[in-house]
Amino acid sequence: MSSILRKDPVAGRWVVNLEREGKKAFPHFSGGLDQKANGCPFCEGNEDATFPEVFAIRDKENPENSPGWKVRVIPSISPIFAIEGGLGKRGEGIYDLMRGVGAHEIIIETPKHINSFHLLDGNQMELVLKTYIQRISDLKKDKRFKYLLIFKNHGRKAGASRIEHTHSQLIALPVTPKMVKEELVGARKYFAYKERCIFCDIIKQERSTGERVICENDDFLAFCPFASRFPYETWILPKKHQCNFEDIPLEMITSLAQILREFFGRLFHGLSDPPYHLFLYTGPNPIPRRGHWQTLSKDFHWHFEVLPRLGKVAGFEWSTGVHINPILPENAASKLREVYN
Amino acid sequence: MSSILRKDPVAGRWVVNLEREGKKAFPHFSGGLDQKANGCPFCEGNEDATFPEVFAIRDKENPENSPGWKVRVIPSISPIFAIEGGLGKRGEGIYDLMRGVGAHEIIIETPKHINSFHLLDGNQMELVLKTYIQRISDLKKDKRFKYLLIFKNHGRKAGASRIEHTHSQLIALPVTPKMVKEELVGARKYFAYKERCIFCDIIKQERSTGERVICENDDFLAFCPFASRFPYETWILPKKHQCNFEDIPLEMITSLAQILREFFGRLFHGLSDPPYHLFLYTGPNPIPRRGHWQTLSKDFHWHFEVLPRLGKVAGFEWSTGVHINPILPENAASKLREVYN
Repeated sequence: MSSILRKDPVAGRWVVNLEREGKKAFPHFSGGLDQKANGCPFCEGNEDATFPEVFAIRDKENPENSPGWKVRVIPSISPIFAIEGGLGKRGEGIYDLMRGVGAHEIIIETPKHINSFHLLDGNQMELVLKTYIQRISDLKKDKRFKYLLIFKNHGRKAGASRIEHTHSQLIALPVTPKMVKEELVGARKYFAYKERCIFCDIIKQERSTGERVICENDDFLAFCPFASRFPYETWILPKKHQCNFEDIPLEMITSLAQILREFFGRLFHGLSDPPYHLFLYTGPNPIPRRGHWQTLSKDFHWHFEVLPRLGKVAGFEWSTGVHINPILPENAASKLREVYN
Repeated sequence: MSSILRKDPVAGRWVVNLEREGKKAFPHFSGGLDQKANGCPFCEGNEDATFPEVFAIRDKENPENSPGWKVRVIPSISPIFAIEGGLGKRGEGIYDLMRGVGAHEIIIETPKHINSFHLLDGNQMELVLKTYIQRISDLKKDKRFKYLLIFKNHGRKAGASRIEHTHSQLIALPVTPKMVKEELVGARKYFAYKERCIFCDIIKQERSTGERVICENDDFLAFCPFASRFPYETWILPKKHQCNFEDIPLEMITSLAQILREFFGRLFHGLSDPPYHLFLYTGPNPIPRRGHWQTLSKDFHWHFEVLPRLGKVAGFEWSTGVHINPILPENAASKLREVYN
């Protein structure tokens, strides 16, 4: 399937138009592979129910697309971007468009039929994180891609696919998406003014007051942000400054796996398995302009954002971009802190 | 009920935190007045079921808050902003916040129990539009308010209230909302570069190709925008340049009522009464800086935007701001053009 990226000339936002129309084309059906009789296409032993793998962590003696893997990456069956060809940037009068060139992969997080992220054990979670690093590093070599997004939808209300077997998605985009750009620009402005990373300052303030902190370990902090858009919105950041997720030192992967398992366990138990989106914000694919990149590595700070989907988003939010959150982040954090007490 | 506006220090977006927590606080329950026995609180004769009116179009002989009105404006029973007091802008370390000062009104569009906008007759639609003008003009006098938003949610999936009697909402905000600012900034940049209004140029191109036009009359054009975020997204613009909705000449109100009734009739019949958001984008409350305002009146162009809600919005859209639209706007416009054929 191919797609076209069109740009709104007023607000500058990009929209993806799928060329094959219809319901299956929605990305939340992207995992919508045919379920085999008595089986799930993401389970070990059903490898032939999916496209051939792009990457897998597996013992060397087991051939590709056969059992014996730990994490497996496959192309999406309904990708929103196609990997082949050039961008074909062009204009139509005052409008701008380009081909939807990118990648869309599914990361199957475990060979076992587990339906929630927090149920992965520590070792398995580490393998998932190592897979994220491998896929981002590999796709960043392709300079057509401006940004690599890893995300996950959990629960039907959050647009998750019909396949409950836990998985993440990776999308490589030929443009830096608007919301990522807003954070990059905001962080750059703050750095230009203060000569400090805004995320490092946020971490310092959150740790000193503690009222919005959910949990932390030596390397990571999980808290409800001051201006949470949704009830129980959570950010998880490395405490030490680091621009790109894929540059994370190996020894920190263990503590990242720990905090993710702990946070998602608290979310699951505290709010009875709520629907949520998880996404990774990291530095974009560096443009070969040295000065720009050198600044970026100082001013941006990779992190995960989790958006639970407990309320509806209505006309006011859509027309203004101003979210209404009926739960104070201090109360949300307090509730999640107390889950295991 | 009062609220606090908090600003995200990275992306700069404002979030409203309601101080009284819980379900009733959601804005899509804002019309959630108690339904009287055998009655709807918005119907003529049930005026005592609502707060006292702020404004009404009624015959002079009928006293306020009694029957005999044509359009009636009441304060919201669960407002997201409070009208009293100052903004109280302050900082908490690196964070910024202010009191949620503003107005939140409900515009009851007809005394009769009608549940869809397009069923208003031409005269009644004109009275609704005149009410919008009166309320915007009145609230613009209050310089604490930066922006006046008129919007409407239709259908439960679009977050509409439990009261089906057709009504709109007006919210006066103490900040210019992010999505409005994006359009204002985009239009200003285009004007600075081209010395032409971007919306005027869009109208010209849309009329010349015609492929995305749904309907038009002497004064207004309704079309699916080139970079539609949602299937059947529609913009309705005055063909002649005009910055502020409230400056619309009286004689144009008849043709605006006509195109709204026609468009919403096409939407209702063509897509079997879909849920949608409608909102009015107009010039913000002018700041007393003359130069700024003079430019704005040339570069911004008021319009309605309609966002039907036929699909889900999943993690990819929330994390990127890049929407995936499976229906080409050319095909959407064609379908709505053919409804009455």
